[in-house]
Amino acid sequence: MTERIHLFDTTLRDGAQTSGVDFTLDDKIRIARMLDDFGIDYVEGGYPGANPTDTAFFEEKRTRRARFTAFGMTKRAGVSVSNDPGLAAVLDAAVDACCFVAKAWDYHVHVALGCTLEENLESVRLTVEAARARGHEVLIDCEHFFDGFKGNPEHALAVARTAHAAGARWIVLCDTNGGTLPHEIEAIVAAVARDVPGDRLGIHAHDDTGQAVANSLAAVRAGVRQIQGTLNGIGERCGNANLVTIIATLALKPEFSDRFVTGVTPEKLGELTHVSRAFDDILNRSPNRHAPYVGANAFATKAGIHASALVKDPRTYEHVPPETVGNRRRVLVSDQAGKSNLLSELARFGITVDRADPRLDRLLGEVKDREARGFSYEAADASLELLARRTLGTVPRYFEVQSFRVMVERRFNELGELVTQSEATVKVKIGDQLMLSAAEGNGPVNALDAALRKDLGPYQSAIDDLVLVDFKVRILNGGTGATTRVLIESRDGAKNHWTTIGVSENIIDASFQALMDAVVYKLVKSGVTAVA
Amino acid sequence: MTERIHLFDTTLRDGAQTSGVDFTLDDKIRIARMLDDFGIDYVEGGYPGANPTDTAFFEEKRTRRARFTAFGMTKRAGVSVSNDPGLAAVLDAAVDACCFVAKAWDYHVHVALGCTLEENLESVRLTVEAARARGHEVLIDCEHFFDGFKGNPEHALAVARTAHAAGARWIVLCDTNGGTLPHEIEAIVAAVARDVPGDRLGIHAHDDTGQAVANSLAAVRAGVRQIQGTLNGIGERCGNANLVTIIATLALKPEFSDRFVTGVTPEKLGELTHVSRAFDDILNRSPNRHAPYVGANAFATKAGIHASALVKDPRTYEHVPPETVGNRRRVLVSDQAGKSNLLSELARFGITVDRADPRLDRLLGEVKDREARGFSYEAADASLELLARRTLGTVPRYFEVQSFRVMVERRFNELGELVTQSEATVKVKIGDQLMLSAAEGNGPVNALDAALRKDLGPYQSAIDDLVLVDFKVRILNGGTGATTRVLIESRDGAKNHWTTIGVSENIIDASFQALMDAVVYKLVKSGVTAVA
Repeated sequence: MTERIHLFDTTLRDGAQTSGVDFTLDDKIRIARMLDDFGIDYVEGGYPGANPTDTAFFEEKRTRRARFTAFGMTKRAGVSVSNDPGLAAVLDAAVDACCFVAKAWDYHVHVALGCTLEENLESVRLTVEAARARGHEVLIDCEHFFDGFKGNPEHALAVARTAHAAGARWIVLCDTNGGTLPHEIEAIVAAVARDVPGDRLGIHAHDDTGQAVANSLAAVRAGVRQIQGTLNGIGERCGNANLVTIIATLALKPEFSDRFVTGVTPEKLGELTHVSRAFDDILNRSPNRHAPYVGANAFATKAGIHASALVKDPRTYEHVPPETVGNRRRVLVSDQAGKSNLLSELARFGITVDRADPRLDRLLGEVKDREARGFSYEAADASLELLARRTLGTVPRYFEVQSFRVMVERRFNELGELVTQSEATVKVKIGDQLMLSAAEGNGPVNALDAALRKDLGPYQSAIDDLVLVDFKVRILNGGTGATTRVLIESRDGAKNHWTTIGVSENIIDASFQALMDAVVYKLVKSGVTAVA
Repeated sequence: MTERIHLFDTTLRDGAQTSGVDFTLDDKIRIARMLDDFGIDYVEGGYPGANPTDTAFFEEKRTRRARFTAFGMTKRAGVSVSNDPGLAAVLDAAVDACCFVAKAWDYHVHVALGCTLEENLESVRLTVEAARARGHEVLIDCEHFFDGFKGNPEHALAVARTAHAAGARWIVLCDTNGGTLPHEIEAIVAAVARDVPGDRLGIHAHDDTGQAVANSLAAVRAGVRQIQGTLNGIGERCGNANLVTIIATLALKPEFSDRFVTGVTPEKLGELTHVSRAFDDILNRSPNRHAPYVGANAFATKAGIHASALVKDPRTYEHVPPETVGNRRRVLVSDQAGKSNLLSELARFGITVDRADPRLDRLLGEVKDREARGFSYEAADASLELLARRTLGTVPRYFEVQSFRVMVERRFNELGELVTQSEATVKVKIGDQLMLSAAEGNGPVNALDAALRKDLGPYQSAIDDLVLVDFKVRILNGGTGATTRVLIESRDGAKNHWTTIGVSENIIDASFQALMDAVVYKLVKSGVTAVA
């Protein structure tokens, strides 16, 4: 018999406290839908009344299956339930459940609320009853529960017991400042579970000691049956518990999967990587390549002591199969790249070559030679694929850049203002035709990119949807005369992403190589043929 | 009585497996020195014989206090100790200690080594004896120990016992694929500690379930007395255990600090944030703002339910005081923290200003404004000092750059070869005199630098010994049109180092700002006065 673990997502509420994160109404709607489809049990959408976005978001129910939840504070001491406008906004929201934060640390009751402990308990009781009377399911987030328990266990427990007795469905133990350690969590949860049944308890952890996931799982082991967290662990300071990591661990580690089940089906679990990255897309930030389970590198091995054994039997080097979370194995081609590595990379590109094909040795030699010069193909799949296809003779000669010139000038303009202007000229030969394009930009690479893609004649329509999304420069050794490595990430209208690389002593040359690869890769992938 | 926990850093060995990380010899030397100064007990430098960089790195001892450690594999089965060239390279290295990886999972002994379990134990024994005979301290990293223990506890334990009996100082239990959970770690370590004393045991954890820190600390609770990890948790896949987080937790959480002590003194702990960020600087990557303890946001609160209470009494909202790790509180409503910080920075430069001086407010406003635009003065002391001295009116107007022009051209030369040429022209006004200098370079910034420093007339002798030692470019947001931050590190004949910064949409402009600051800083520091 397995027990149910309930997943409570607070990305849109506590996650919105992340510095630099500012959800629009549209973002909130998209994220709530994604969480709902994925199988999350509770989607906490924000704090109705606290700001116009949250108020608008709670005008209608935004989930189909998940319980749509509003966050608020328990009734203020000294006013009645009907005279607390903050509370009214929460109770009036179009939700299935209300989650109220209550002070569980006596110190904060005195300092922040300025009321007695009795009044605090009374607030909890009246708030729970008021929300239940409106037909809402009720959760009580016990703020600073663990610090509170260490300081005054009687009051912390009284808050939990009061909420339970008043009919709250869940009493959530919050490690608000994130400083509690896993074994403390386990011991304190076990103590609480003697008063309040575990299937009414939840955990809300923060990552201030890098242990929010461990703390959440320790709480489950000690009895709680609800976990609160956020997508990719966003949140104030060091973040909240990362639900993505927790979901995978609950589903794939026998210790948990033998005893528990969540609302995320095995089929949905296969979308975990997609969900994590789609969320980063909405935030417009690069996914963490090293994220557990879902990072681009989570199942990647750089050639080294493990690579050849990994090729022999990948499973013993992977703690879970990458496909279960929708991720994939990557054997990185680098410095010590062997033939087996290269073959498995080529297979991923859909290129099959015989192990004895002499072109394979040529390609391997070329890769090693270029990596010795500073190329790093593990970060630039598209350039590796192009190099491979060129060696195998399957990349058309679409066009030839005969020359380019980039100029950056800083001078005083006619108004006496100091201005810097960048312009580039590119001469391209397509078939028999010579085309000269010029463009300005806000820097030399931007100008060169604009000139190169301004008019590629018959190919122009195939690259119209190409967008440069990232440009990275790394100097490989000291000084301004050093070798420069440029990585360019591109995207097209169909949301395909690819990364290309250029290396040169000259940053403009390096950028140009990466830009050229980005364009040619797009033409190859679009199945464009060369003009005669 | 406190017990000693030994810190073993493997940034330069296991951390070097991180995708995208490629240490130069100079990087390795700098990082080893930093770890040594910080109080790390063991600095594992790499794998002598595996590649030219590591071989060169091990030609001399690179630490003063820390044990300088080489990594290698135990003797191959079927050859004698003296006939194993890989082993010889490790034994011949200029080190204090050798750390050998041994297979502890019977499955891998059969599949990867293709030898018997007895031969495997024999390899361990002979390797330990050979290294001890050379006067080295010996560590045995038991690869896949936890998976091995679950599959065949007898063999896993036999490897640990054999290493111990042969005289290895440390037997390190490795969770190689990172999939083991904290309570499993705790139980298995406790089982091993019945055979091998805990003060001979170490833990080596990976972050594949987001619990490398929790696993390391669970192992300490169960008895191990050595922790292996990396700076900022870099490492293959999801990374190694983050030593930065672990060091802070051991030092600041009474559960650990009451029982244990490490080689990092409280004073050095105050440099933790600096060490973490300096390492990111070497990697040329942005520090993780959400990192536990050391992230820019680790003690930051966005206006929300906690902000006003935080202002009343910050300590109850912070799990540890930020100063203990050299970090600082950020409450977005208060300017006061900024002023105190700035005053202490200025004092460091030897500049004393009265707290009430209005120029201080102007400087603070300017710093905040520039940081909002992407400047990062934490990494560019010299530019901050110049900005401060300019606001206080003590930087002479040495010269004025009236205009510059940089051109990069790629074309076919008279021999039909494709060449790229970069040249720059700079017009400088010194006193009444206008000077035009032109120079070529192997890239636009190099050409600009050469032209600027070609002839500064009366100042030339003061900058003759100026050398640019590093040039770093970081793109602050996506696309080739993004804001660019350039950091330039310079050095003079007296081995003074200083770093300057420039930020602009245009990489050439940003580089120029940093170059100008580098030159002016040198003139100021040399006490040069301006030509009338």
